[in-house]
Amino acid sequence: MVRLAPIAAGLPATVPFVGPETLERQAGRPFAARLGANENGFGPSPRAVAAMQAAAGEVWKYGDPASHDLTQALAAHHGVRADNIIVGEGIDGLLGLLVRLTVAPGDVVVTSDGAYPTFNFHVTGFGGSLDKVPYRHDAEDPQALLDRARQTGAGLVYLANPDNPMGSWHDGAVIEAMLDQLPEGTLLVLDEAYAEFASASAIPAIAADDPRVIRMRTFSKAYGMAGARVGYAIGHPDLIAAFDRVRNHFGMNRISQIGALAALQDQDWLAQVVARVDGARQRIAAIGAENQLTALPSATNFVALDTHRDGAFARRLVDALASEGVFIRMPGAAPLNRCIRISCAPDPELDILAEALPRALSTLQGFFFT
Amino acid sequence: MVRLAPIAAGLPATVPFVGPETLERQAGRPFAARLGANENGFGPSPRAVAAMQAAAGEVWKYGDPASHDLTQALAAHHGVRADNIIVGEGIDGLLGLLVRLTVAPGDVVVTSDGAYPTFNFHVTGFGGSLDKVPYRHDAEDPQALLDRARQTGAGLVYLANPDNPMGSWHDGAVIEAMLDQLPEGTLLVLDEAYAEFASASAIPAIAADDPRVIRMRTFSKAYGMAGARVGYAIGHPDLIAAFDRVRNHFGMNRISQIGALAALQDQDWLAQVVARVDGARQRIAAIGAENQLTALPSATNFVALDTHRDGAFARRLVDALASEGVFIRMPGAAPLNRCIRISCAPDPELDILAEALPRALSTLQGFFFT
Repeated sequence: MVRLAPIAAGLPATVPFVGPETLERQAGRPFAARLGANENGFGPSPRAVAAMQAAAGEVWKYGDPASHDLTQALAAHHGVRADNIIVGEGIDGLLGLLVRLTVAPGDVVVTSDGAYPTFNFHVTGFGGSLDKVPYRHDAEDPQALLDRARQTGAGLVYLANPDNPMGSWHDGAVIEAMLDQLPEGTLLVLDEAYAEFASASAIPAIAADDPRVIRMRTFSKAYGMAGARVGYAIGHPDLIAAFDRVRNHFGMNRISQIGALAALQDQDWLAQVVARVDGARQRIAAIGAENQLTALPSATNFVALDTHRDGAFARRLVDALASEGVFIRMPGAAPLNRCIRISCAPDPELDILAEALPRALSTLQGFFFT
Repeated sequence: MVRLAPIAAGLPATVPFVGPETLERQAGRPFAARLGANENGFGPSPRAVAAMQAAAGEVWKYGDPASHDLTQALAAHHGVRADNIIVGEGIDGLLGLLVRLTVAPGDVVVTSDGAYPTFNFHVTGFGGSLDKVPYRHDAEDPQALLDRARQTGAGLVYLANPDNPMGSWHDGAVIEAMLDQLPEGTLLVLDEAYAEFASASAIPAIAADDPRVIRMRTFSKAYGMAGARVGYAIGHPDLIAAFDRVRNHFGMNRISQIGALAALQDQDWLAQVVARVDGARQRIAAIGAENQLTALPSATNFVALDTHRDGAFARRLVDALASEGVFIRMPGAAPLNRCIRISCAPDPELDILAEALPRALSTLQGFFFT
């Protein structure tokens, strides 16, 4: 009855993403601890909050379609030119635009099996063909990605550094070396959503004008503004300018632009948050260790805890924690899915985790021993 | 150097939309009156502002990807089911998703010459082929749209009621009759962005489950929340569900969802705004009449003033008003472009318009008489 275009008609009809609010409605009660979406419970800068509150009454105005002030500030912050930067509706939105710009139906895109599902959603959604390589030692495998890109003639190859969902990372030098081996005509999509949590050595030194790579950054993680939908890409001016061909020009929220600018200008707050996140990582690792779950090293605001069992066990554990009022998630592909993924948060929420985890594990005893 | 997919490679490289902030930066000073984007200077409900301010500190959380609370409230407000409604990032965002869902490269889409440019941007951006019929008596022409749709086998036909940029409207009965003549397989995109400003008789009675039409509504206009990017579509559940195949699931701003819900719940404020807008329409008409410009009837929050000259004259007048600190816009196609388009606003801004308009016209005297 509804006439869909061929690509859309071939897409799955199921809803691929389920938010914690949906789980809460199904359970009939709110989560006591929200540790599943790598949100940043340490929150945004108070200056960002104040700026957004002050801007609320002016929301009758559209946001500046050029996101001029934020773009200028980001350029200064990164030591690049404004034409190296495009601001968009979160990395998710920018990834969708990038795929639309660069992937024709049938084109191959290379990523890792278990890497960011939303990127895959966009590739499939525009008719691209996903080709996945396995993780290696719980990290994305640059050499395998390069080899597969070369074999397939991929237009895009995706790598997150630091990685989601494992929290692992490569030295910046590894990424720099990867660029030098990138096949002609392949663009590296370097998702740096978690960059602010990593040590400086994990951030590659790449010229903003380098045409081989586009880097994605966000205000959703370290800046604590996931609900504001502000991300940005850094890249060659020709590629950055191409976003203007397809983006929703008046799509950037006015309050969010103003809030992100204020957040960027409060680097002291950012530094405090990064330190608190580091403390939370250590505490999550300790809570895991008390329960025979092993924390993987993390350069992000979450910790993957190895259950030393399989994906079915981890799924049961995620569900059992949900029953205890704790929202977490887990990787979607083997062998990563032997782990659960817990977002860093202030102590009150980690207290709840510490109490709930042994109870949740105890409910799995029967399963554990079969 | 940058490898774009064929459709993207064929799109214009120029930036198609210019915001008032860009004009202000070019002029080196802010506008004194912002009357060009059909924003609603009467502003959002104070309850919506308060709700957004209260939500600002919680912006570290992603918005509910289902926009559940807002969707439920909208369903109740319109007397439809929740599965008839999809909330999205403004009508602009929803139009883009709709085109992506329904228009394959080369498919014909019918609209009116001079109608909403953002819709055209999306059609072209997904490789669709635009076919335009002229306005008739400064209004969109349902019969011509239907005839052209039938001739071309168009998948989509777009009509805004009330119309932008002319402010004209058809009785709801005309739209209802249009549906009955719609060719098999053609979907009517009924853009009702300005519906709240129109009299009840202009709103067609259409069953929400009617598969022949999708209706677009927004919080940007009467609700005064353009900068928050909240729109919604009402349609058949199968079509509404199809948006889940391609939309950016975590793309809805958390603060905006909360603000829109509060705005919806303050219908008293909405009624006051609609009354104030009606007063502003009359005042703009009077200001026009004092300057030999004739107001066209409007069911929107803007007024098209007929200059009784041509598009070149109107363009000069728009520029002259900008020099006087007044931001307005004008239709983009002849013969509509003999008009200028002025958004309703509170009296202080219309005072500025009243002072600036005769000065701006006087600067065109030489042009006027050549």
